[in-house]
Amino acid sequence: MSGAPDRPALGILAGGGRLPGQVAAAARAAGREVFLVGLEGFADPAVLAPWPHEVIRILAAGRILAALRAHGCRDLVLIGPVRRPSLLGLRPDAEGARILARIGRAAFAGDDGLLAAVVKVFAEEGFRVLGAQEILAEAVGPAGLLSRAAPDALAMADIRRSVAVLGAMGAVDVGQGCVVQQGIVLAVEAAEGTDAMLARCRALARPGPGGVLVKLVKRGQDRRTDLPTIGPGTMAAAAAAGLRGVAFEGGGTIVADRDAAIAAADAAGLFLLGLDPRALSEMGEGT
Amino acid sequence: MSGAPDRPALGILAGGGRLPGQVAAAARAAGREVFLVGLEGFADPAVLAPWPHEVIRILAAGRILAALRAHGCRDLVLIGPVRRPSLLGLRPDAEGARILARIGRAAFAGDDGLLAAVVKVFAEEGFRVLGAQEILAEAVGPAGLLSRAAPDALAMADIRRSVAVLGAMGAVDVGQGCVVQQGIVLAVEAAEGTDAMLARCRALARPGPGGVLVKLVKRGQDRRTDLPTIGPGTMAAAAAAGLRGVAFEGGGTIVADRDAAIAAADAAGLFLLGLDPRALSEMGEGT
Repeated sequence: MSGAPDRPALGILAGGGRLPGQVAAAARAAGREVFLVGLEGFADPAVLAPWPHEVIRILAAGRILAALRAHGCRDLVLIGPVRRPSLLGLRPDAEGARILARIGRAAFAGDDGLLAAVVKVFAEEGFRVLGAQEILAEAVGPAGLLSRAAPDALAMADIRRSVAVLGAMGAVDVGQGCVVQQGIVLAVEAAEGTDAMLARCRALARPGPGGVLVKLVKRGQDRRTDLPTIGPGTMAAAAAAGLRGVAFEGGGTIVADRDAAIAAADAAGLFLLGLDPRALSEMGEGT
Repeated sequence: MSGAPDRPALGILAGGGRLPGQVAAAARAAGREVFLVGLEGFADPAVLAPWPHEVIRILAAGRILAALRAHGCRDLVLIGPVRRPSLLGLRPDAEGARILARIGRAAFAGDDGLLAAVVKVFAEEGFRVLGAQEILAEAVGPAGLLSRAAPDALAMADIRRSVAVLGAMGAVDVGQGCVVQQGIVLAVEAAEGTDAMLARCRALARPGPGGVLVKLVKRGQDRRTDLPTIGPGTMAAAAAAGLRGVAFEGGGTIVADRDAAIAAADAAGLFLLGLDPRALSEMGEGT
């Protein structure tokens, strides 16, 4: 794992879920060494285990930077959900405190503000932050219909209304997801996450045709961090919520475990639709 | 209750809660006859009981109009929450079907679209729709601090961020409420209502100073219908969610049972702040 490889190793700053391991496997398959920094309390030890890694507290920035440098990392991928910490409950190390001071007000703005600041700090420290999709190209869902079921006219109208709502929310850096049924906005996602949002939708649903879940990249969001993510679990939760389908931004959404996600959609009779990003601004105008 | 009073009777189309009875009492105290149409499944029989009333299905529009006319109503107040029905699970009477056809697409747009269409239909049928606050002036909370506790600088920053978020959401006719803590948008209200939104906030809260609930009138909303409403129960739910206070749009929010609401805020150490509506657009710009 050590030594001086031809290409610098890929550093992976790992939050939760299985994607950090998948990115590591894709990089290794492409002949590249990897080193994972598992964020304490977020990264799954079982996901980290097969790879060279270290588990470090999220704001122990000095230790994170040192570990990445010690393992020859120059390129860096940030991947896997990290619940945003309370800024007042943190125990930064000296370097972390210095960086927090540098980030300053941005950390108190929306999520994008914080992530952009983090990316900027890594850049200033000499790292190049890549999007996970640059390593794991097939992780990103394409535009087009992936499922056997297809949205009908009512579902398409609900998708258009969702796109308008998410566009407005994204402008204030909130929310990547919402659920609309028969034109009614049942739920909008903030800090609770998509699964928790879906969990409350069954009780909110009206009789008649079920609603849709739509997930989009926030306008202006840095696509190297925190892309919307769906997977087989999302399909199951959408089915349990009585929805008829899921639409996501094609080319801008990580579809984890894609074959299983499509199989789950088909098993539940849901549609799974990648929206053409070029059509989104037009779609959002109708409502 | 019958006969030909000097002033036409006030019709009250009653949804849930105690406000319909309070509006009726205020009208009666001002020397005016009242007649309540309790919307079946929404109006509380105990609230209707003291007043001349009839309980009618929400889309039995023919019966509603006939009942209001039979009791000499010309002015009309729509008050009390009504969960928006599924348009496909309704059983309109003949007049209701005719009106639904007239409302048409508006019923599929946001809540404001539907309510505006309903107000328009009543106007076309010869009724004048009044805001509840025109009858029950003291129901509307004023701008200014009502509680003993006052928001600190962090809470004011959270209020400003909330105002920006609600402004963006209101532009797409969604949401009258949101919760922000330490700059992070914990929750945004859609169809679940304020109490349900608050119920999920405890689990989403970060350590450190608690968040704020803000409720505003949606931009462009017809103030004769569906004003944001808070009351003693809101204060209890906010306290249970770990919030530090509640801010509402002064002059545009019904504070039900105001003395009890203030007492509940004071008992829990929450602030209760009426925002000056003239300052809102300015506040929303900072973020």
